[in-house]
Amino acid sequence: MQMPKSNFSEWYNEILEIAQVIDKRYNVKGCYVWMPFGFQIRRLVFDKLRTLLNETGHQETLFPELIPEDQLLKESEHVKGFEDEVYWVTHGGLTKLDVKLALRPTSETIIYPMFKLWVRNHADLPLKVYQIVNTFRYETKHTRPLIRDREISTFKEAHCVHANLDDAEKEMKIIQEVYSKFWDALAVPVMVVKRPEWDKFPGADYTISFDTVMPDGKTLQIATSHNLGTKFSKTFDITYEKEDGEHEYPYITCHGISGRAIAAMIAHHGDENGLVLPPEFAPIQIVIVPIVFKESKEEVMKKAEEIKEMLSGYRVVLDDRELTPGNKYYYWETKGVPIRIEIGPRDIENNQVVLVRRDTKEKRVVPLAEMREAVRSLMNEIYEYIKQKAEKEQLEKIEIVESIEHAKQLENKPVVLKARLCSEACAKQMENQLAFEFRGILVDEPADGLCIVCKKEAKHWGIFSKAY
Amino acid sequence: MQMPKSNFSEWYNEILEIAQVIDKRYNVKGCYVWMPFGFQIRRLVFDKLRTLLNETGHQETLFPELIPEDQLLKESEHVKGFEDEVYWVTHGGLTKLDVKLALRPTSETIIYPMFKLWVRNHADLPLKVYQIVNTFRYETKHTRPLIRDREISTFKEAHCVHANLDDAEKEMKIIQEVYSKFWDALAVPVMVVKRPEWDKFPGADYTISFDTVMPDGKTLQIATSHNLGTKFSKTFDITYEKEDGEHEYPYITCHGISGRAIAAMIAHHGDENGLVLPPEFAPIQIVIVPIVFKESKEEVMKKAEEIKEMLSGYRVVLDDRELTPGNKYYYWETKGVPIRIEIGPRDIENNQVVLVRRDTKEKRVVPLAEMREAVRSLMNEIYEYIKQKAEKEQLEKIEIVESIEHAKQLENKPVVLKARLCSEACAKQMENQLAFEFRGILVDEPADGLCIVCKKEAKHWGIFSKAY
Repeated sequence: MQMPKSNFSEWYNEILEIAQVIDKRYNVKGCYVWMPFGFQIRRLVFDKLRTLLNETGHQETLFPELIPEDQLLKESEHVKGFEDEVYWVTHGGLTKLDVKLALRPTSETIIYPMFKLWVRNHADLPLKVYQIVNTFRYETKHTRPLIRDREISTFKEAHCVHANLDDAEKEMKIIQEVYSKFWDALAVPVMVVKRPEWDKFPGADYTISFDTVMPDGKTLQIATSHNLGTKFSKTFDITYEKEDGEHEYPYITCHGISGRAIAAMIAHHGDENGLVLPPEFAPIQIVIVPIVFKESKEEVMKKAEEIKEMLSGYRVVLDDRELTPGNKYYYWETKGVPIRIEIGPRDIENNQVVLVRRDTKEKRVVPLAEMREAVRSLMNEIYEYIKQKAEKEQLEKIEIVESIEHAKQLENKPVVLKARLCSEACAKQMENQLAFEFRGILVDEPADGLCIVCKKEAKHWGIFSKAY
Repeated sequence: MQMPKSNFSEWYNEILEIAQVIDKRYNVKGCYVWMPFGFQIRRLVFDKLRTLLNETGHQETLFPELIPEDQLLKESEHVKGFEDEVYWVTHGGLTKLDVKLALRPTSETIIYPMFKLWVRNHADLPLKVYQIVNTFRYETKHTRPLIRDREISTFKEAHCVHANLDDAEKEMKIIQEVYSKFWDALAVPVMVVKRPEWDKFPGADYTISFDTVMPDGKTLQIATSHNLGTKFSKTFDITYEKEDGEHEYPYITCHGISGRAIAAMIAHHGDENGLVLPPEFAPIQIVIVPIVFKESKEEVMKKAEEIKEMLSGYRVVLDDRELTPGNKYYYWETKGVPIRIEIGPRDIENNQVVLVRRDTKEKRVVPLAEMREAVRSLMNEIYEYIKQKAEKEQLEKIEIVESIEHAKQLENKPVVLKARLCSEACAKQMENQLAFEFRGILVDEPADGLCIVCKKEAKHWGIFSKAY
């Protein structure tokens, strides 16, 4: 692969194909195939998320996919957000169904009627479950694998029930920590943003979003966390008995991450030669390429096998195919294997190996006896390097603007705007004058100085961007 | 739980609920919820299947769920088998779709158009992939969780492409071995049967089925393996270039296992007190119940913690809830925890623990120093015991019949018939006179003697049963 990343859209499509992550040639718009290599990445990434959720007391479950029409329509604010996008099943075989069934666009209206049955009293709370499923949106916008799918083949949704607002807010923090650890592991830089009233999840009290700045300067929403208050527990008549015998509506929070996680990881770290992956999520972490000449072939192959054994615990491939080393390098670079080990006759003579990093292409000659330790430390270096690089690149795309005029000058640039604001009203006023959309205010970074719209005291940093 | 297994149907429903495996109260017929505990069993069981498939070179993938109408209808024999059972999506939002989309009833017509793109020449073969997904059947028969669902929430389907018939037949054997290992691990006894012409998979050359005899004497098909010959490669125009440059249609085989695996495991081993699970698939393998009295509480709890640490590597729960030991016993018996460890002041005094088996309820006092080894060996004993018990119970339900009259006398008994036959024609003739259905002939057990229908030389053992 030799595809400049400067044309991000083309590069992204090409890399998914060449690295055999996703095949987008399936015959239904917005529905894609996870190929074996891509599936392994998916598995590693979502198993990480599973681990983090399990550690914080969330239990994995699996709920049905089909929603009876009246059940989906029950929460009116919620359904307004989805009614244009829902796929409807109307027939079973040749029979017209009595009740139309929706393919889940998200599972609140599936899970909460069950919560009504599961939640009885305070001892049942908090109830924290999640599932990893496919969901469906009849998207009318341009589709793009893992970024905007009609079948979102991978959607982790957590749904939690809490006795009171305090506990719900605590859960919002717990999830923010879980997600921060997750993005950190993927080395994906994020901005944690509170969405404005007009852009929150349909039915939520408020929405926290994790947005990342993609190489083309657009933001991608890669995780969301919603405090639903008691709206849904009222709609679905979920109550619990308190210690004093009173019955009360519990608070519900819900929290989603989709296959976009993998899109973001690929987009941030990949380069003109293919994938670059954090070692933790590389299906193959080390490839051993024997440099063989006729007379020494047997000896080199034997040593290569030894090296493989010395690296037990890592995901290692010994590439013994009948190809030139150059062809092998190219192949494994495309697939983002973090470390290549070259071993030839001269290396055997010197009792050494050559380690080559995928990220910087740097070569390092190390004594065989130190190889395992060198590999371990190189894995960390690679992770740290790509993480800092991605953070730096994101930071460079965020422009602090001091006035609306200043913002206007940046309209054709691949940047995200950061502006001091006092309120969502001022944000709206600013948005109306710009080709950027208001994404919300930064959650963990208060602002001082003056609102750039009304010149009163600013409270927040507002984020404006173009989105997919 | 105190539910006699003699009324299997009630017992089965009750155990799924009490042990918190499946909640069947979801508001769409035939669609059920995997609860957290049930989901853990599901994960352990299907991860085992994953391991066995990966070891034999099958690669996990994920294909879309929706099938355009014309694509589903392309293989006419195939579609006839499913047309009454397919759910149709006709609308996206408020828009009527140009092309109706089917929810996958199975994925041949989804995967094989992609195989057409993936298979180019002999070096691409064999191509062996699988996925674990939900599938849909608009069942008109009585639905029952995990046995007959409208949303089959868990379906492992492997699809393999082979250069020639020989390789396809080899794959049929490989899968037979994989499946045999799988059923062996689950301690589920099976009969491997070749289905008759009129009961094979729609579009297949032939179908091998793994059937198990349930406690009520009905058989349940718990795995199938189909040799599709070249029918589907012709329909979907899949060809490959041979070494000599000629193009040829490859052979395709496909192989399925659903959530029925878990139904069978539960049905065979469970008893009137709840689940009994092979230790490998028990979400919790050991529960430690401290027997506390006021004065010695601290000491006992400390020892219980120590015991838990000594059992690292196992899935252990220390039950420190404020309940009586009896209540705890009952609770964990329901959930099928294979070993209970009781530890009280007298045990501490004697430097011992009490191990209680879930399967036989037998108690065993062992010195603390020998506990870990005793647990390891007890796990094996439990596995062997429940496996042999299930095999014996299945064998007792299989009646060898020597004549059609003999078979008729068994019509109201909960048994499976085994009869010497010469041909499917004779099987059909026998079936027509009985309330039993012909399931096929045993694959690994040739028969001698005379066909009980025509009295000519018999070749096979035929199996007749009532099915769900």
